Amino acid sequence: MLDLTPCQKLWVEMDGQIVMSDYRVRLLALVAETGSLAKAASAMKLSYRRAWGKIKEIETNLGIALVQSEVGGAGGGHTVLTPEAETIVAAYVRFQARMAEDLHAIFEEEFASILPGIPA
Amino acid sequence: MLDLTPCQKLWVEMDGQIVMSDYRVRLLALVAETGSLAKAASAMKLSYRRAWGKIKEIETNLGIALVQSEVGGAGGGHTVLTPEAETIVAAYVRFQARMAEDLHAIFEEEFASILPGIPA
Repeated sequence: MLDLTPCQKLWVEMDGQIVMSDYRVRLLALVAETGSLAKAASAMKLSYRRAWGKIKEIETNLGIALVQSEVGGAGGGHTVLTPEAETIVAAYVRFQARMAEDLHAIFEEEFASILPGIPA
Repeated sequence: MLDLTPCQKLWVEMDGQIVMSDYRVRLLALVAETGSLAKAASAMKLSYRRAWGKIKEIETNLGIALVQSEVGGAGGGHTVLTPEAETIVAAYVRFQARMAEDLHAIFEEEFASILPGIPA
């Protein structure tokens, strides 16, 4: 019996440009979790400059502000998501989770009957 | 209102190796359609050698024969899928179609309520 694993990659385009993707939403979710673009960038092994560029690119494409930076304070500046970005990230994460459930369920339904016939 | 299009890429791994993908299954489906690996390769802008290599790789990974070649005859040789490959291609195409339906349905469900609030 073969041990096959279905996989998927999701993204969202607008006018042929990628505006959301598993990767980009993960960056935003990490900003929300850590309160810091530097920490989010580091967790994704991106330079701060590159992470910042990614976020500015999504903001330009979608036409909405996604992050708010606050400078100074005791621990230095920090970055938070705007309410709109929080809503988008939450919707995308639900979209991902539901698609992942379907991926496994549908793959099993379509392949369960034929896989036992395939010698490993 | 933003005109967002959800997209997905599907593939199947075994022991961390890709054994099926939208791309690979399209190559097999084209062999079935055209009866010719040369025509299938050309339709995908692949060299014959590369297309052949791809198919041999999937055969090795899955441990089953996918194509049968018949040499000679009036119109030269031709290539057909084995019954096992036909079954696999048909299952994968159904898997793809059902996932594509869900992709759009789930995306709309999760984003319909928030998109009107996002200025274009």
